[in-house]
Amino acid sequence: MSPPTEPGTPRRDPYAGRFAARARGMTASEIRALFAVASRPEIVSLAGGMPNLAALPLDAVGDMIGGLVRSRGLTALQYSSAQGDPRLRELICDVMALEGIRGHASDVMVTVGSQQGLDLCTRIFCDPGDVVLVEAPSYVGALGVFASYQAEVCHVAMDEHGLVPEALEEAAGRAQRRGRPAKFLYTVPNFHNPAGVCLEPQRRGRILEIAARWGFFVVEDNPYGLLGFEGEPQAALRAADAENVVYLGTFSKTFAPGLRVGWVLAPEAVRAKLVLANEAATLCPPTFSQLVVAEYLATQPWQEQIKAYREVYRERRDAALDALAQAGSGWSYTRPQGGFYVWLALPVGIDAKAMLPRAIAHRVAYVPGTGFYADGAGADHLRLSYCYPQPDRIREGIRRLAAAIEEEQELVSTFGPGSAAPLTGRFPRADGPNPDLS
Amino acid sequence: MSPPTEPGTPRRDPYAGRFAARARGMTASEIRALFAVASRPEIVSLAGGMPNLAALPLDAVGDMIGGLVRSRGLTALQYSSAQGDPRLRELICDVMALEGIRGHASDVMVTVGSQQGLDLCTRIFCDPGDVVLVEAPSYVGALGVFASYQAEVCHVAMDEHGLVPEALEEAAGRAQRRGRPAKFLYTVPNFHNPAGVCLEPQRRGRILEIAARWGFFVVEDNPYGLLGFEGEPQAALRAADAENVVYLGTFSKTFAPGLRVGWVLAPEAVRAKLVLANEAATLCPPTFSQLVVAEYLATQPWQEQIKAYREVYRERRDAALDALAQAGSGWSYTRPQGGFYVWLALPVGIDAKAMLPRAIAHRVAYVPGTGFYADGAGADHLRLSYCYPQPDRIREGIRRLAAAIEEEQELVSTFGPGSAAPLTGRFPRADGPNPDLS
Repeated sequence: MSPPTEPGTPRRDPYAGRFAARARGMTASEIRALFAVASRPEIVSLAGGMPNLAALPLDAVGDMIGGLVRSRGLTALQYSSAQGDPRLRELICDVMALEGIRGHASDVMVTVGSQQGLDLCTRIFCDPGDVVLVEAPSYVGALGVFASYQAEVCHVAMDEHGLVPEALEEAAGRAQRRGRPAKFLYTVPNFHNPAGVCLEPQRRGRILEIAARWGFFVVEDNPYGLLGFEGEPQAALRAADAENVVYLGTFSKTFAPGLRVGWVLAPEAVRAKLVLANEAATLCPPTFSQLVVAEYLATQPWQEQIKAYREVYRERRDAALDALAQAGSGWSYTRPQGGFYVWLALPVGIDAKAMLPRAIAHRVAYVPGTGFYADGAGADHLRLSYCYPQPDRIREGIRRLAAAIEEEQELVSTFGPGSAAPLTGRFPRADGPNPDLS
Repeated sequence: MSPPTEPGTPRRDPYAGRFAARARGMTASEIRALFAVASRPEIVSLAGGMPNLAALPLDAVGDMIGGLVRSRGLTALQYSSAQGDPRLRELICDVMALEGIRGHASDVMVTVGSQQGLDLCTRIFCDPGDVVLVEAPSYVGALGVFASYQAEVCHVAMDEHGLVPEALEEAAGRAQRRGRPAKFLYTVPNFHNPAGVCLEPQRRGRILEIAARWGFFVVEDNPYGLLGFEGEPQAALRAADAENVVYLGTFSKTFAPGLRVGWVLAPEAVRAKLVLANEAATLCPPTFSQLVVAEYLATQPWQEQIKAYREVYRERRDAALDALAQAGSGWSYTRPQGGFYVWLALPVGIDAKAMLPRAIAHRVAYVPGTGFYADGAGADHLRLSYCYPQPDRIREGIRRLAAAIEEEQELVSTFGPGSAAPLTGRFPRADGPNPDLS
């Protein structure tokens, strides 16, 4: 990876007064700052969430893409519409049908990864100070988007069954009473990043009902839904509600992230605004990437490839859970049934951020839980990504982590417990808005 | 092309109250609305600005890309850094050197076309209501960006030598006196879209001096600089000022737009904020497109390809100017020395927008001048794009346009002159802010 992004250094920055207010919320994420260290070969990085592409048949894909350029290069290399290639949008509907979604290609818009989908949703929905409801913890990249639009993040509790409906109801009411009704709920219902949990089916209807009643959208971000290790994919929230759900999908985990092809499926009036926003943002999504994905879906065994990816991740999940069961005590962790991540609650008194330099001295890296909260919570958790390393490296990394934690516990017993909150049934959260965002 | 983007229809839109204030500024551009009509085969479209890719050697490019996937697919298809591929950024510096720019790869950020570069610049610089100084006329896509960030566009007069320094000074002073000092000047100095003119060398230093004195950035958008038909490329504004110029470049016109690879070269503190904004917007620019462009620059005769493109456009420019000289009277037009566009001042009393349906009945399409102003000016001008059609089609299209104008003049002489302003030495402009943006 490249060197990490340096945060702005306002005091020494002669241009500081010339930026927009929103630029103050743009600060480097903890994950990015870690990459430079975690990419050293002697370190087992359980930090980054890069998909493992080893199972991809490069020769076949190379032949397919070369042929596409030779036969339809004048189209593939030209500008195209801001909404995205019509054939690709049809094929995207086939992909979504696997999770029970009956969508029309005319309601799909292609984006530069689902990250851009979330960026554009926030752009069309949120004025500065507007409230978005966000799981606690939540995806780092989403928090970056909300900060860059000066939205106010109100975290909503999760537990091992996903977002807690009562907490959502309470947060929606609190926002309303403050005169700032929530604009949308941002949720990753399947194989959550970082929490590794799934929103259980009984809660899905209740969450949709709460959203409809309070009048906010549900932005359903579903990068991992097809990467479950057991049984069939769950029905998406969007499958049950076409009016209030804005669905974000991506090929980053089911094919390849370097193409940067994602999509939004949205109600017509929302889709129309998104297309105008997309046109302003990039004119059109990369035509070439779009035609590559369309050709891949039309001519290659993409469902078999997803099965191959599932096996890659299942093997690594098994390695991670085996090693966690053998290595430690005093910690607890989620047991993901799909996706990339384990969310680990540290023994009482240990601070994930404070421990990180010592963990790196033990040659293992992770992301401290604080990266996944807008409000400073999360120091008593960390995220382990098992998606990328070889299984034996994952085992070795978790052994090193256990050693680091054991050493940290000795430190704590010598110098007294840190300030981390004691664990409860729910993942950590705090109520207030993030003062850095206002 | 796909069907045109439909503008939002707020009155019938049940979601209208749920959008951000900035979404009100997102409306469909006149160019987009034209595409559906202009793409019918019987119409000669002089409307769209699509590059002509016929000169691109698709077999060689296909082989190159297929080989890239087979040999380095795991990198090319993976996530990468938000700043962009380091090797590509080095090669971009070689491209910029052709226009006298001495930049460092560390100050370059790759974007999804230069459109995204402008979007991110506006994001980091402009709060709602902030003033941007914009040539009159200006690029449609830039006006869309400014509207989507609720920036206030203050147009600055141009003439056949480009932006008028005195008008810039005056506009900067006016903004300052209103308590809204300009954040930046947006300018296309070379082979302007839509005006087809170049900023003359003597004016360049004066404009930089004015910007430095009033404390605003110059955002220099230079998609056409290497597509001049005579002599060597002019030195970029950025070549003379590394502190106040933010430079936008793109491979859309020198290689292929469908890859969506552009870049920003910016002072370090600005670049740092841009990278954070880019990370929030898309995580990273498309890795695959970036590696394709880097491989192309490193292994293919890209400077020869630019010469081939120049010949394609020169031949078409010649056809357009010949046909204009032969066909009409009562109009005047710019004589571009590069790029894609002729800017045509209609005979007094003719309104380009009102005439468009009748021109289309004559089987020719163009973009009315109003599309290039934020303030409703421009009805007495139109833009002719000669970049895409075959030369004989361009000639035929201009004959049809002349016939349409002649017919329109008869209408005007029967029913009296329209409301278009009489022509002056400068292109049309109006002073006030755009009421739609506030």
